[in-house]
Amino acid sequence: MTQSYWLANVLLESGFFRKDGMVTKTITENCHILVEEGKFTKIIPAYENLPVGLPVQDTGGLLMLPGFQDMHIHLDKTYYGGKWKACTPFVDVFGRMKEEEDMLPSLLPVTEERAKKILELLLQNGVTHIRAQCNVDPIIGLKNMEAVLQALKSYDGQLSYELVAFPQHGLLRSNSVPLVREALQMGATASGGLDPAIVDENIEASLHALIELAVEADADIDLHLHEPGHLGIYTMKRLAKLTEEAGWQGRVTIGHAFGLGDVPVEVAADAAETLAQAGISIASTVPIDIPTIPIPLLHEKGINVSLVNDSITDHWDPFGTGDVLYKASLMAERFAWIDEWSLGRALGFITGGKMPLNSEGERVWPTIGDKADAVFVEASCSAEAVARRSSRLAVMHKGKIVSGSFNQILAKN
Amino acid sequence: MTQSYWLANVLLESGFFRKDGMVTKTITENCHILVEEGKFTKIIPAYENLPVGLPVQDTGGLLMLPGFQDMHIHLDKTYYGGKWKACTPFVDVFGRMKEEEDMLPSLLPVTEERAKKILELLLQNGVTHIRAQCNVDPIIGLKNMEAVLQALKSYDGQLSYELVAFPQHGLLRSNSVPLVREALQMGATASGGLDPAIVDENIEASLHALIELAVEADADIDLHLHEPGHLGIYTMKRLAKLTEEAGWQGRVTIGHAFGLGDVPVEVAADAAETLAQAGISIASTVPIDIPTIPIPLLHEKGINVSLVNDSITDHWDPFGTGDVLYKASLMAERFAWIDEWSLGRALGFITGGKMPLNSEGERVWPTIGDKADAVFVEASCSAEAVARRSSRLAVMHKGKIVSGSFNQILAKN
Repeated sequence: MTQSYWLANVLLESGFFRKDGMVTKTITENCHILVEEGKFTKIIPAYENLPVGLPVQDTGGLLMLPGFQDMHIHLDKTYYGGKWKACTPFVDVFGRMKEEEDMLPSLLPVTEERAKKILELLLQNGVTHIRAQCNVDPIIGLKNMEAVLQALKSYDGQLSYELVAFPQHGLLRSNSVPLVREALQMGATASGGLDPAIVDENIEASLHALIELAVEADADIDLHLHEPGHLGIYTMKRLAKLTEEAGWQGRVTIGHAFGLGDVPVEVAADAAETLAQAGISIASTVPIDIPTIPIPLLHEKGINVSLVNDSITDHWDPFGTGDVLYKASLMAERFAWIDEWSLGRALGFITGGKMPLNSEGERVWPTIGDKADAVFVEASCSAEAVARRSSRLAVMHKGKIVSGSFNQILAKN
Repeated sequence: MTQSYWLANVLLESGFFRKDGMVTKTITENCHILVEEGKFTKIIPAYENLPVGLPVQDTGGLLMLPGFQDMHIHLDKTYYGGKWKACTPFVDVFGRMKEEEDMLPSLLPVTEERAKKILELLLQNGVTHIRAQCNVDPIIGLKNMEAVLQALKSYDGQLSYELVAFPQHGLLRSNSVPLVREALQMGATASGGLDPAIVDENIEASLHALIELAVEADADIDLHLHEPGHLGIYTMKRLAKLTEEAGWQGRVTIGHAFGLGDVPVEVAADAAETLAQAGISIASTVPIDIPTIPIPLLHEKGINVSLVNDSITDHWDPFGTGDVLYKASLMAERFAWIDEWSLGRALGFITGGKMPLNSEGERVWPTIGDKADAVFVEASCSAEAVARRSSRLAVMHKGKIVSGSFNQILAKN
């Protein structure tokens, strides 16, 4: 249990300043916050004297934002932490699977070490919760899962996690149902699936197997769905139906959901309503090399959309930064969210929806009793942090500083 | 004149490694390079002993790349270096002009100081040559031009520059012909223009005025062309024709050229051929909020395309990083250039076409007698630098280190 202490001189957002009805500035105030048992338990204005008797951590006036989340990050099979290696030109998903036949065994000796390197990078960038992805497949069996679990264990107390047993070579195609089942017993929290039509070549059987695994283990579902256009839309709607039948609302995520990006907007809107109805979330990297899925529309329809790293550098993609704040910024840029209000709202896409202010400008975070997961940013408000991808100087998980420190900013002041 | 010295332990690219006909790696070698009078005058392999008698700068094995260029960067009217300010939602170019009526006079006291801040940022990121953009308009007259010239003067010897007298409020619309003329006498090197149809409402008169100004002053031409689709294409082709008539081939740049992004690819290809024929260059920020212009196609057709920052943070856009290497990376990501060869070629878009290797893998830079403008990067090759947006530890202009140092890397080794 963490010792109680005061977090002094924290910049908190407190409202919007409007001009002609438009939000033009975010108002902030300096506060002291009491941290007890890993929670925020009291907030007082900084002009009040700090009660004596408890230790004090002075943040030097840094902006406090909710801890970030990366809800789709492959911790295994990465080049990150090793020598530079470009991708081969993309042909299809089967080409990438083929590459894994040599790659996975050769990386195994460093899988745990590199997973830790990714965790360290995420942490530095402000992530306090992740949904890790890890292969289970006939090539590597459960060995990557073991390595990733070890890595996660060594970060216990520094970030919280979920873990997807991901059958990269096809749940049915590679006969990975038993592997996923075993992984769920080992500690994975979600059953993964992949392209039921193109990879498993049987949408119905693939989705049923996925849901049965999840229900059997009382686990979540995480379907990586790259399938294009109307094919992808069909699968999403079918998944929504099966989710409702299984009573699994709120426990299903679709990763990528590319199909939503290349159908007419009316079709995407209709599918979005169906997904929202079934409580299905979406995780997106904000791809810019293909039609980006209509994230603002999906959000409006009530879908919980998370912006995610996916990977840092691997055989799929060499461009990852490990920074979900960059993804929020990229999304804002992609959809021309350039005004104060819109930029600030982009933050919610990397915090599981948590934002200091609600859409009207009332402070809704932190509230008393909230878990003390936070990022301390060199910025004047959320909008600036998103647009300028501002530096993160310290990261807090359950009331404990798990990355960075306040020394740098205090030395500056 | 800089003292002669040896640049020791420089990593230079020396060839491609191919597997099954595909470039999978870039081969490098360690070299010592003699720098005399601001030029590279000798290259020897690092396994040879350094000749005695001259000072030695050890780079610690950093990769040397050609100095970067930013061919379109507004140095005036920036929020950078001041307090955070978001944009207002975009309505049209006239709304932005209206904002400048208050903004330009209020920023004037800090225009020079902020221009220097931008120059410092560019320099840190590896830029050794810029084409600066500066307003001339009825609001601020030539005062921003004076401030920007002062800022550039104070960076004399640190980077080279061109300077565009840019009539942001319309060359004809705001009667800015005399202002541009005067700016060209003051030290501007290019005559700027803006949207001849939408802003000046007379394509023919606007283009003629632009070209006359340039010819009269023996200056280059830089037309900022945001006009969409077929309208933009028409103006580009008309400009190409007038460029040829004036004998101004090789001296004309179109900024943005958005029209190329939203016409059928055949139309864009045809226009690209016309522009290439007239020796017209294009500067693009790689916009992702609108259809990106087909940069690979334009390049194939022989157009010199530069990727540029445009701005850092101002009333148009809050997302600028000041890093053209980021733009090269963004372009590579946008067009799925993920393999070793393609990633490496992306470098040429931020160096005025200079790359260590030609497309066949023969070293073509540096060659003896080349100006010693270079960036020293923590990467194993150009492809890695582009994909990973690698750190730049030192920047050299005319043989002199103008930003960073080799101390950090030497301390690591």
